Parts: sequence; structure tokens; C-alpha cells
Amino acid sequence: MCPHALIPFKIVNPKTRLSCILSQEEREAFARAMLEDVIYAVKDANCSPVVVGTELFDSELIQITVTDADLNQTLNSLLPQSVGSILIIMADLPLANAQAIKRVISTGDDMAIVPGRGGGTNVIFLKEPQRFHVDYYGMSFLKHQKIAQDSDLSCEVIDSFRLHTDIDEKEDLVELLIHGTGKSRAYLEQLGFMLSVEKGRVGVKRKEKTSES
Amino acid sequence: MCPHALIPFKIVNPKTRLSCILSQEEREAFARAMLEDVIYAVKDANCSPVVVGTELFDSELIQITVTDADLNQTLNSLLPQSVGSILIIMADLPLANAQAIKRVISTGDDMAIVPGRGGGTNVIFLKEPQRFHVDYYGMSFLKHQKIAQDSDLSCEVIDSFRLHTDIDEKEDLVELLIHGTGKSRAYLEQLGFMLSVEKGRVGVKRKEKTSES
Repeated sequence: MCPHALIPFKIVNPKTRLSCILSQEEREAFARAMLEDVIYAVKDANCSPVVVGTELFDSELIQITVTDADLNQTLNSLLPQSVGSILIIMADLPLANAQAIKRVISTGDDMAIVPGRGGGTNVIFLKEPQRFHVDYYGMSFLKHQKIAQDSDLSCEVIDSFRLHTDIDEKEDLVELLIHGTGKSRAYLEQLGFMLSVEKGRVGVKRKEKTSES
Repeated sequence: MCPHALIPFKIVNPKTRLSCILSQEEREAFARAMLEDVIYAVKDANCSPVVVGTELFDSELIQITVTDADLNQTLNSLLPQSVGSILIIMADLPLANAQAIKRVISTGDDMAIVPGRGGGTNVIFLKEPQRFHVDYYGMSFLKHQKIAQDSDLSCEVIDSFRLHTDIDEKEDLVELLIHGTGKSRAYLEQLGFMLSVEKGRVGVKRKEKTSES
């Protein structure tokens, strides 16, 4: 089994909730590094990555380019055309690894889903994509469970913190600096980010640029 | 295999980071409800719960009562005496279920560990408790990995968001209201807590008390 893995990706001005600590240029490079980590994991799990975005970027990957940035509309136009099973995985999951993705795609149910922190949906696996439609944003995890139920599709919820941990805010970088092993962690470290403990709580801090560096 | 599961528990004034939305009395009842959810999951995974605290509370459970509230000292005095394998699981993991705990205790390695959000350690399983000592607080996940390495113990990191999600702050209640099925979720709902979506982000709100209720 070698399903296509659709990876929605925003090239320009991504991850605005990280603006407090990263410039736009840095956020774009960071988002690209996270995407590469996800692609690595997806390939390692024997899936074929397909990046879905509004602009092409320099890569040998298969890319689907759409004019409309609406995630739901884009994916819902692709699902009915799909041949074989489909994985939809977000690009901001740099802790993803092959083991976790294999747990998703080896579900015995009609589909599998991995919730994101805060009610979102980070990964969906569909054996019959024609029978499902996505509805991201807000409490999408509960909406997707309802859509599965309404479509009479059995759905396994995969219990993985690696796929649960999406990187949106400064606090999330802690997880990446602790558990990450790929390019996005290396990029953060290159920028001078490191773990710090203050009043018993773990956070991140960024080393001030010195004139020598 | 039926390992003892040590569950450290603070009865009086627990979960102070929830003070913004719960009174002390409510926090104590909520902590107790989370403990009961953990105990249920532990028993369901065929482990024997042993609550470790500074004060006895009304329960038929086996309880170990210690005069010193220092978690590390308490556990490190118990580990060398242990016969057979030991699970140490925190009391604020109300999403814990038997399936996740079974993944922990069925590790092929000498020990297994589940990281908590923010660098903590939520669960440790030890086949030979005599060979390990705990060092909680701060970046305990990394410390525990180092102790394992120094003690020449192979250690599996279990990838579970159910055991990764400790409930410390208001934002964490979102996870409980979405994924919880036990007493602590029911208690929150009884207090009037519900999910809310504002500006696309999911949070919790508490219904104002009315004179009728």
C-alpha cells in the first residue's frame, strides 16, 4: 500500500502566531523546514507526498497548485477524483515519524483521524476518499467524527502526541526542541533558540545576536 | 503481568494554575475526579493502583501515606523496595485509557516513558525499579532519558497524546471536554463548562450561575 499523502502548505507569510519571535522571512523558512520534516516522515512510511498550495515552489515533489486558498474547497474537489486511499496531513507537524504515520494508515477501520491540540484535525486517512468530505477550522475534529458517522464510515482515533502536536505558538517550540530530530529543529537552533526553565516551567528563549555572530 | 501503579496525588489545594476559573473546593473535587479517571484506566489495564500522598482520603484503595511531600524523595524511597515491575502515573491525566497504558506496560525495552507537554514526564514504567531513580520537575523527560542511559536501561518513548495531555491550565480543559469520557469531564460539565469558538480558536467558557440553577 502506497497512498498519496496530500500536504496543504502555505508558502507566503505562514505561521503568523509566531510573529512575536520570528520575522516573516524566518517564518517562511521555518514552515518550509517543517514541511520537509513531514515529507521525510511520509516517504519513510511509504506514502507519496503531494504538496497542495496556491503557489509552486522549487522542489522535485509532485505539487498540486490551486488558485483558491480555501482549504476545504480545495481538498473536497480532490477527494472525489482520488484513486485508492488518501492521507491528508498538515505541514506543521515536525514531530511526525514513520511509526506514527504507519499506525494511521494501517487502521482496520474505514478511516482514521488524529486530533490536533485545541479541537483541530491534524491527519485524516481515508480508504474511500469519495465517501468523505473535509470541514477544517474550529472544532474540526468533532465535525470530522460527525461526517464519518453520517457517511456510515467506521473511524479510528489514533493516539499519537507526535501527530497531535502542531506548531502554532511560541510555547509549541518547546516540544520541537525536546522531541524534534529533523530540519525544523536544526533551523530553530541555528537561529539561537534554546530551552529555558523559569519558575519551574519550561519555555524557549532566543540568544541575542552579538556583533561577532 | 499485574504491576503496581503508583499515583502521586495532592489532596489539599491542588491545581493552583486553575485558580482563575475554579475555587479551591472545586479544584479539589476536580483533582479527585481526574484521579478516579486515572484509577479506572489503570485497573482496566490490569494494574493495581496505589495512591501516594501526604494524607489519607476516603477510599478502599491501597494508599501509601508519607510525611514528606517531596515527590522525588518519596518515589525514590519506594522504588528500591518494589517487587516486580512498577508503573508511575500522574493523577492529572484524565484522558488515560487502558489501551494507552497497555502500550506502555507491554514495552519490549527495560523501561518506557511518556513525555508530558512542556518537557515533563507523565508516565514511567520500570521492569526493574531498583535500577532507576526519578527526578521530576523542570525538564524531567530529558533527565529521565539521561538516567536511563546512565543506568544502561533501554527506554521506549510511548507516543500517546492521551497520556501526554496533563491538565494544568484553562486551555487544557479544551482537550478534556473534547476527548474525555469519565468523571472529570462530567464534573466540568456539571459546573457549567462548555467549548466555545472565538476568532476561530477553540476555548472553554463557564456558564454564569443563574438564580434558578
